[in-house]
Amino acid sequence: MQSKMKKNIIFLRLFPNEDVNIQLKNACKINNVKTAIIISGIGQLKNVKLGYFKEKGNYAEEIFKTPLEILSLNGNICRANEGYITHIHAILGDENKNALGGHFLEGIVSVTAEIVLLKAGINVERKDDSQTGLKMLYFK
Amino acid sequence: MQSKMKKNIIFLRLFPNEDVNIQLKNACKINNVKTAIIISGIGQLKNVKLGYFKEKGNYAEEIFKTPLEILSLNGNICRANEGYITHIHAILGDENKNALGGHFLEGIVSVTAEIVLLKAGINVERKDDSQTGLKMLYFK
Amino acid sequence: MQSKMKKNIIFLRLFPNEDVNIQLKNACKINNVKTAIIISGIGQLKNVKLGYFKEKGNYAEEIFKTPLEILSLNGNICRANEGYITHIHAILGDENKNALGGHFLEGIVSVTAEIVLLKAGINVERKDDSQTGLKMLYFK
Repeated sequence: MQSKMKKNIIFLRLFPNEDVNIQLKNACKINNVKTAIIISGIGQLKNVKLGYFKEKGNYAEEIFKTPLEILSLNGNICRANEGYITHIHAILGDENKNALGGHFLEGIVSVTAEIVLLKAGINVERKDDSQTGLKMLYFK
Repeated sequence: MQSKMKKNIIFLRLFPNEDVNIQLKNACKINNVKTAIIISGIGQLKNVKLGYFKEKGNYAEEIFKTPLEILSLNGNICRANEGYITHIHAILGDENKNALGGHFLEGIVSVTAEIVLLKAGINVERKDDSQTGLKMLYFK
Repeated sequence: MQSKMKKNIIFLRLFPNEDVNIQLKNACKINNVKTAIIISGIGQLKNVKLGYFKEKGNYAEEIFKTPLEILSLNGNICRANEGYITHIHAILGDENKNALGGHFLEGIVSVTAEIVLLKAGINVERKDDSQTGLKMLYFK
């Protein structure tokens, strides 16, 4: 992964076999991010794991092994005690141009990925929510 | 809805049963927005109404009652006489990871929504277009 | 096409029968862009050509003649010797609210398009990659 920051824009280029979540957290660490917003994401991934939230403790997960184009990445990355927490939703495209998507749990770069983050000076934290089992976002 | 602004970035957190359009307009009012660009939007909605523009006076509308993940929100919000006008397109994901989308007419938060706006100093207005029946965007 | 820039935000309004790639490059030229990130894109297009990268020299292309809503445009535009190179992925929606998408090769405005670019001070270049046949992004 290579990243370059200018003002509050961080541009990332990922390489084959890199893990998207790990590299996003690395880029945030390198560039001293508190909270970052994903403002752009394209490329192609393999072994993508997506989720759909049903109810507490019930996340419908699915793995897509075939390479899929990244059509959109949306979400944010915020600092937590142990490093960073990502909350990302992805839309992917197959060879027939069908779009699929969900809560992005995992994905490995197959060809390339070009992702752009916007550094936000807004401090947020995620707290466990007993009703949903999710880590809900709050402003500090 | 809670919102926090720093420089030109406005971060919104929406809560269950809140109406997305109403809360986006509220956030714009609170933060004195002229024109805002949606740069990120994730979460989960229910009772989503989507449209597809066919021709003048013919908007194919559909309502999705089941909760759907917000995979992407794209569009802008601009000041108008009576408050604000939103022009938003949404992409949503179901339990099977299928993606669907259209012109976003309405939607209620089911679990949470994390939306980020970029305040733009660009003044725009929307004027009725007799040929399409749409409110077309112009720069002031 | 009309465009208006304020600070590092460029707002574009496209008109019927305009070519998206040509107008994006025009807007970059007019506003003296080195590198721009697409942060928002909505509207409706016709004659859209989408691709899916399979392997070197094998790009599965498909043309969609029917008007489709632009649900999302993601990607970047960077200066090259001969002008600008765009790398864009698009998600489109049909009348039944199905979402489809891929590498955006071409598209003509059918009704309108509202696209927003973020000017980034980051210099990038694209170099031919012999293994994939793609123009890969590097930071200067």
